[in-house]
Amino acid sequence: MIRGGKGILFVVSAPSGAGKTTLLRRVVSRLPGVSLSISCTTRAPRPGEQEGVDYFFISRAEFIDMMREDRFIEWAQVHGDLYGTPRSNLERLQQGEDLILEIDTQGARKIREELKDGVLIFILPPSLEVLEERLRSRGGDSEEAIQARLQNAQKELDQMTWYDYIVVNREIEEATKELASIIIAERCRTARVLKA
Amino acid sequence: MIRGGKGILFVVSAPSGAGKTTLLRRVVSRLPGVSLSISCTTRAPRPGEQEGVDYFFISRAEFIDMMREDRFIEWAQVHGDLYGTPRSNLERLQQGEDLILEIDTQGARKIREELKDGVLIFILPPSLEVLEERLRSRGGDSEEAIQARLQNAQKELDQMTWYDYIVVNREIEEATKELASIIIAERCRTARVLKA
Repeated sequence: MIRGGKGILFVVSAPSGAGKTTLLRRVVSRLPGVSLSISCTTRAPRPGEQEGVDYFFISRAEFIDMMREDRFIEWAQVHGDLYGTPRSNLERLQQGEDLILEIDTQGARKIREELKDGVLIFILPPSLEVLEERLRSRGGDSEEAIQARLQNAQKELDQMTWYDYIVVNREIEEATKELASIIIAERCRTARVLKA
Repeated sequence: MIRGGKGILFVVSAPSGAGKTTLLRRVVSRLPGVSLSISCTTRAPRPGEQEGVDYFFISRAEFIDMMREDRFIEWAQVHGDLYGTPRSNLERLQQGEDLILEIDTQGARKIREELKDGVLIFILPPSLEVLEERLRSRGGDSEEAIQARLQNAQKELDQMTWYDYIVVNREIEEATKELASIIIAERCRTARVLKA
């Protein structure tokens, strides 16, 4: 009766600037049995970003090879850069480990269609004003890039209605606790407890 | 967009001896915005039980009057004693406060049918052996009463499949955290966040 079978796939989306990355790192550092899926991207690393921690930074040619070999469970072009989730990342689920995928709403939809599984969580910034502030303070983006990200944020927000959960990132500690609670609660769902 | 509307109704069932009462008190003492619904019963108080904290201890005649006046949202006879949830307890939900009802599986079914609402949580003892041990160490029950409770426990366990969540009470601190997480997670459900 004790859960020990397949891990749970958590799919987390947020407009950039919602504070998703910081939040997810706090959750996985604090909660055993769940880890982050690292995506591949053709985007250049931002200051401080590390290979294999933030992303696997690969060339466009390598990315296209992986696409051809069907080695992504989902991929998307965002602001001109390619992002993809390697299928091999999902192997940890078979070992009973829970996994978090950080992907945009397009990718989340593909995951739900392809896997018929996954718990979808949307991280919301407290307001669009706060979002803009965060995007600007992060640095490294041009004014055009910031404007494009804000427009895109609005489009992403329209998609949140079909997510299972919404976490409003007003205050990092509270939001961390909410996200961790969602993971713990999903492990207690009757179907999962009885299946194991 | 912030949740501020109706509270969430949590319905918690467990075989007696699963440690439900201790667990629920820990959760409500630690988590703001949620309280326990106090039931009425015709059963005699056990040693240490307090009027208005554990139950409202009323006479059979008073109970039957309340039944006639339709003042219970659900009531049940268990081991010959009557237990009922006063409708007035649900008023706190309208004020945005979450509420926990401790009721047996019969009562839980009535709540789900009548209110078409509520999050159902089943508390499971680690094993039937542990359950028997706990029932005996509690004292105040005759051997016949203990045997009846054990038989009833088995019947209750058959009902857990239609509950939303199962919390296995192996260790009180872990189980408290799981129950609190379920409450926090349910507050983050998209339908509730967007409705508010």
